[in-house]
Amino acid sequence: MLGRLLLFFKKVGVVVQQNSKLRINLDRDSYDILIEQGLLEHLGALISEKFGKPRTFIVTDKNISEHWLEQTLDSFSSKGIFPKVLEVPEGESTKSFDNLEKIIDQLLEAEVDRECLLIALGGGVIGDLVGFAASVTLRGIKVVQVPTTLLSQVDSSVGGKTGINVRQGKNLVGSFYQPSLVVIDTQVLQTLPKRQILAGYAEVVKYGVIRDNLFFDWLEINGQRVLEGDQQAQQFAIYNSCRIKAEIVEADEKEQNVRAILNFGHTFGHALEAEAGYDGNVLHGEAVSIGMVMAIELSKSLGHLSGQDAVRVVEHIKKIGLPSNINSINGSEAWYPEKLFQHMKHDKKVSNGRMRFILAKTIGEAFVTAEVRKDKIFKVIEKSLSGNL
Amino acid sequence: MLGRLLLFFKKVGVVVQQNSKLRINLDRDSYDILIEQGLLEHLGALISEKFGKPRTFIVTDKNISEHWLEQTLDSFSSKGIFPKVLEVPEGESTKSFDNLEKIIDQLLEAEVDRECLLIALGGGVIGDLVGFAASVTLRGIKVVQVPTTLLSQVDSSVGGKTGINVRQGKNLVGSFYQPSLVVIDTQVLQTLPKRQILAGYAEVVKYGVIRDNLFFDWLEINGQRVLEGDQQAQQFAIYNSCRIKAEIVEADEKEQNVRAILNFGHTFGHALEAEAGYDGNVLHGEAVSIGMVMAIELSKSLGHLSGQDAVRVVEHIKKIGLPSNINSINGSEAWYPEKLFQHMKHDKKVSNGRMRFILAKTIGEAFVTAEVRKDKIFKVIEKSLSGNL
Repeated sequence: MLGRLLLFFKKVGVVVQQNSKLRINLDRDSYDILIEQGLLEHLGALISEKFGKPRTFIVTDKNISEHWLEQTLDSFSSKGIFPKVLEVPEGESTKSFDNLEKIIDQLLEAEVDRECLLIALGGGVIGDLVGFAASVTLRGIKVVQVPTTLLSQVDSSVGGKTGINVRQGKNLVGSFYQPSLVVIDTQVLQTLPKRQILAGYAEVVKYGVIRDNLFFDWLEINGQRVLEGDQQAQQFAIYNSCRIKAEIVEADEKEQNVRAILNFGHTFGHALEAEAGYDGNVLHGEAVSIGMVMAIELSKSLGHLSGQDAVRVVEHIKKIGLPSNINSINGSEAWYPEKLFQHMKHDKKVSNGRMRFILAKTIGEAFVTAEVRKDKIFKVIEKSLSGNL
Repeated sequence: MLGRLLLFFKKVGVVVQQNSKLRINLDRDSYDILIEQGLLEHLGALISEKFGKPRTFIVTDKNISEHWLEQTLDSFSSKGIFPKVLEVPEGESTKSFDNLEKIIDQLLEAEVDRECLLIALGGGVIGDLVGFAASVTLRGIKVVQVPTTLLSQVDSSVGGKTGINVRQGKNLVGSFYQPSLVVIDTQVLQTLPKRQILAGYAEVVKYGVIRDNLFFDWLEINGQRVLEGDQQAQQFAIYNSCRIKAEIVEADEKEQNVRAILNFGHTFGHALEAEAGYDGNVLHGEAVSIGMVMAIELSKSLGHLSGQDAVRVVEHIKKIGLPSNINSINGSEAWYPEKLFQHMKHDKKVSNGRMRFILAKTIGEAFVTAEVRKDKIFKVIEKSLSGNL
């Protein structure tokens, strides 16, 4: 509620500087999400303030390590903490059983105990892999998420879903395991490629569409500033994305009902990623963007969403520069509807063989349904394949 | 409380037939433990009554499969459920990353979804491995524990600890994940080797010592009946063991404080198993038995436990035929105290480099302490090595 109020003030032009800290309250595990420019410089101080002087392990990849590791380590050493650094390769294929086992092996070789602290410094791949490793090492050690991409800052670092990929699909093995703290520094986005920022922004739009029309209004006006690196706009967008995600996760940590709406656009999106073969040709956020447009079209065609609302969402996605049709993906000329439909059937959300869809009722309200006829789905896939959405 | 009352009636000779069902109440996950002769014959009926007609997977090993699988499958087919059976090798080395990955792979290949049911039919190895697999497949699917050894019936099947072994030690990787149901059939103990029954009985004695003097009294009188296969005595012993474990786990699911007392005798015991190399030369329960005698000696030497109580526990252990000294283990002539001490330092319970010990105050009350001088520990190890406990 406070978040919505702030949003309203912001919208009407009142400057309110109160969007740097969120608390997520769960049954047993509650934690803070800190959001501010330059937090990485103070990471050591934040950790020592909250956890004392734990033996600390930082897992990161080469790319992040080049840009941000030195500064991070300095922030620790000034507090008398000297973390051990484990480096894993970049890219989606890093989320494997093999790397999971390697990280755990290195932790155990260093005689990790339950008072130690693990830090996931990187994007969604690092966050998911390290969160999973933390959840099963000694049956659970503390992990702090320090996400370094817009996508992971607004999505995967919050909410406790961890996982790795297996040959049958993405994130099919993992756990629900909450971090002890999430530290989001908007400054790290400065070294992130433009395309990555844009892809992350797709998830930001999602929060407005599924839960918060005021936030969507704000994005229509300020989205471009977020993409261009305006720190205040980025902080505000991230704060509200995390706030909305936190509200939903608090209501349903284990995804037994409402949490499923966070997958708006994802059932379609995952099918596109699966068909593309996770080769980096289509980024997750791009697939979600196309998937959201498909979900909007499906919502409209089933009579749940007004044409006016549908146009607003699709227009914003297009105007901001996100892809909206499957035919924008390289190589998609060879794709056909039946194959994409088969991928959708393998989604984790399938329950007792029934596919579930997240649809929109208005901008700001999404719902879950299993009542979607196959021909309606095919029609949407065909439209998107031919670039007509 | 009810359990203690029943125990008292039993002790004074009143027959009370109310020890076939326990409920364990945890924050989010509550479940029943059913204990009775012949339950396996009705497993299919129990499952369909509770879960409907889920797609079911049974994981078991060759030994169990030979004795009990046919009957189990019949109980399902008569209810219209036709489980897929996955067989893993017997023995402690089965609890590996490799087998974890294989089980998950087979589940995913069979298109497991979150409505499916996994059944762990076997001893502690199967229970730990399958529980772990269930906890991370699709971030958690339902698992029913059907323990087939006395050890797993009174210990590992209840309480939600799962895990595998890695080169650094046993159970160092795993999760806290509660089963949806535990089904304990005392009849399966009839095909269990005598030595395995005896080893499992060590954990039964443990419950009396750490938490319940009435139960210990009962064991002094009826322990032999439990070992000889008296079904009523077995059911009563298992019921009370599970009741005590349930009380402790309810108070502290994630082992942040009191749950540690369940490790009475285990810090010493694990060191013996580690030194023996997990080759089957010393069974877990045997190591725990020797470890309990050491913990009793340590408790006495530190002035926490009376000589009278110490004698009673050690006498019962010896009389029943359990080992009480390290020198009863084949090959232990070559062992020396420092090495065993090093193994103890690698226990999961070590916190901030400090070893913690579970000691007894009286029969029926144990406590955790980090205040034990190294020379006292060495003295106990030396006595046990030379067969003087």
